[in-house]
Amino acid sequence: MPTIKLEDVAKLAGVSKTTVSRVLNHRGYLSQATIDKVNSAINELGYHPNIVARQLLKTKTNLIGILLPTISDPFFGELASLLEKKLYKKGYKVIIGNSTNDPDKEIDYLNQLLSKQVDGLIVGTHNQNIPEYKQKNLPIVAIDRIVNEDIPIIESDNYDGGKLATERLIENGAKRIIHTNVSQRESPMQKRRLGYEAVMELNDLESKTYIIDFDIPTTKKLNLLNQIFVENPNIDAIFAGNDTDAAYAMQVAQKRGISIPKDLLIIGYDGTELMRNVLPQLTTIVQPLDEMTELAVDLLESRMNGRDTRHEYIYPITIWEGSTDKRTN
Amino acid sequence: MPTIKLEDVAKLAGVSKTTVSRVLNHRGYLSQATIDKVNSAINELGYHPNIVARQLLKTKTNLIGILLPTISDPFFGELASLLEKKLYKKGYKVIIGNSTNDPDKEIDYLNQLLSKQVDGLIVGTHNQNIPEYKQKNLPIVAIDRIVNEDIPIIESDNYDGGKLATERLIENGAKRIIHTNVSQRESPMQKRRLGYEAVMELNDLESKTYIIDFDIPTTKKLNLLNQIFVENPNIDAIFAGNDTDAAYAMQVAQKRGISIPKDLLIIGYDGTELMRNVLPQLTTIVQPLDEMTELAVDLLESRMNGRDTRHEYIYPITIWEGSTDKRTN
Repeated sequence: MPTIKLEDVAKLAGVSKTTVSRVLNHRGYLSQATIDKVNSAINELGYHPNIVARQLLKTKTNLIGILLPTISDPFFGELASLLEKKLYKKGYKVIIGNSTNDPDKEIDYLNQLLSKQVDGLIVGTHNQNIPEYKQKNLPIVAIDRIVNEDIPIIESDNYDGGKLATERLIENGAKRIIHTNVSQRESPMQKRRLGYEAVMELNDLESKTYIIDFDIPTTKKLNLLNQIFVENPNIDAIFAGNDTDAAYAMQVAQKRGISIPKDLLIIGYDGTELMRNVLPQLTTIVQPLDEMTELAVDLLESRMNGRDTRHEYIYPITIWEGSTDKRTN
Repeated sequence: MPTIKLEDVAKLAGVSKTTVSRVLNHRGYLSQATIDKVNSAINELGYHPNIVARQLLKTKTNLIGILLPTISDPFFGELASLLEKKLYKKGYKVIIGNSTNDPDKEIDYLNQLLSKQVDGLIVGTHNQNIPEYKQKNLPIVAIDRIVNEDIPIIESDNYDGGKLATERLIENGAKRIIHTNVSQRESPMQKRRLGYEAVMELNDLESKTYIIDFDIPTTKKLNLLNQIFVENPNIDAIFAGNDTDAAYAMQVAQKRGISIPKDLLIIGYDGTELMRNVLPQLTTIVQPLDEMTELAVDLLESRMNGRDTRHEYIYPITIWEGSTDKRTN
């Protein structure tokens, strides 16, 4: 038997959900006739009021918060832009906070968004164990991050992406493949690394990952990438954890006189529209951002309406066929 | 004689500015001794309370709103990111709204930000004549847009940038130079066009500008860029109004078998860190974003403290020397 919902009570009583919620909470001005109608519908259906009834009473702000680790990276720019457009079309307004991968700052922004009484939150940041996320009654959906077990997460198949990129590079002759990733151990991005390491091990090759976080200055990124070439003079491929790393690595390599793809193969990750059009030669694992953001909005609405969702939603990745992953003699 | 400020009264009375403000507004719990001290300092200095005293009483939210036409373009991503970092360092938090170049949406977001009681607003959107901007007491600073005569605007020397790019292309042999720009007539970006048109006319060359707005879908941008080549088979150069247009034009040209810079010269505008590192071969006019955002934060603080500012601040541009602007036979 399906669970009886507040909607069912409203339907049977011939009143709105808000009215049912008011009757349940003894609030607002209601005629005795309405109260009786609602109560008899509740009895008839055997309805047990739950959290939803209370949530409906809360003043709706129609405001959704988005919390991201950075907005200067094209991936997060495109993510935020798609979410905002889809949410706005449904009547919500969106405010964006930028946490810069800093847990204190993330808590700060989180509290800010909560105090602005957002109806819901979409998070794409990477810091776990922030107690504010456990605040009951706040619907949250996570994209590409793990917050806690109550919060649904949407991600691309990071493990498969890592595997596919590494297999492709090995098939095309690479043996000394370096990977870049972020320092946050709880990020689903780590699955890209796990996929890479699994395939490397299977092929008796040595894994080596360099940490390049999102929101460090560009000069620092370029220095770290340069270090890869200094410390690994025999490197023959890079599987970059994101396209910005991949694009920057291409420039650093070229400055060192390393020709791509002749001397070095490169595969990136993300495949934003911007990167696919600015640097179409870069082969990259594509996250289906349009579908992922569509689902994020749907899930958030489900949570805001008190409906249950699954914990994890994984989207298959595809590959953008550029020319940086195959040697063309 | 310098104007006597509330700070001076506070200093002389040996109390905080808030206390002075409370005395002036007859609010809060104050001892008669304090009231007497403040009043005698006011008399001694000949202080005339002004708007500042009233503003200090307003509950500070330490929240700054940023309103942008898009966040998926690297220019606005970098702009928002720099502003956010600089503001956060000073103790503010930032919420970002994305207006998608849509006046209704801009009003919507503006009202949203106002209702969230932001202490100040930085706007980079392009829609003029929105009455909400005239709301008294809300400190606003504009970057690269004209809001109204009361609001200070920070911009790069767009006219000079347009001139420099066009002169460079002509020096390097181009004659049929197409420009891209946005449709908003009130955007300072139009000065890039005016600079281009002035130089073209001076050289007896025909100007032709194509409109490509920021927040249209990428496929539409690519179609518009393709149209440029269809309608102008003899085109020998493009001065793009921004780097995204320039980068996309390079890809469209290459797909049509047009070799850059052999058959076509290109110069862009913006010169973000991302683009300079992803596509260093693209010659582009660089806006000094770091300085511009630094000033935006300073100006906003001045306005929040009731101080006057100039109306317009124009930053000189520089050129990023790539290879797309000179024919290398």
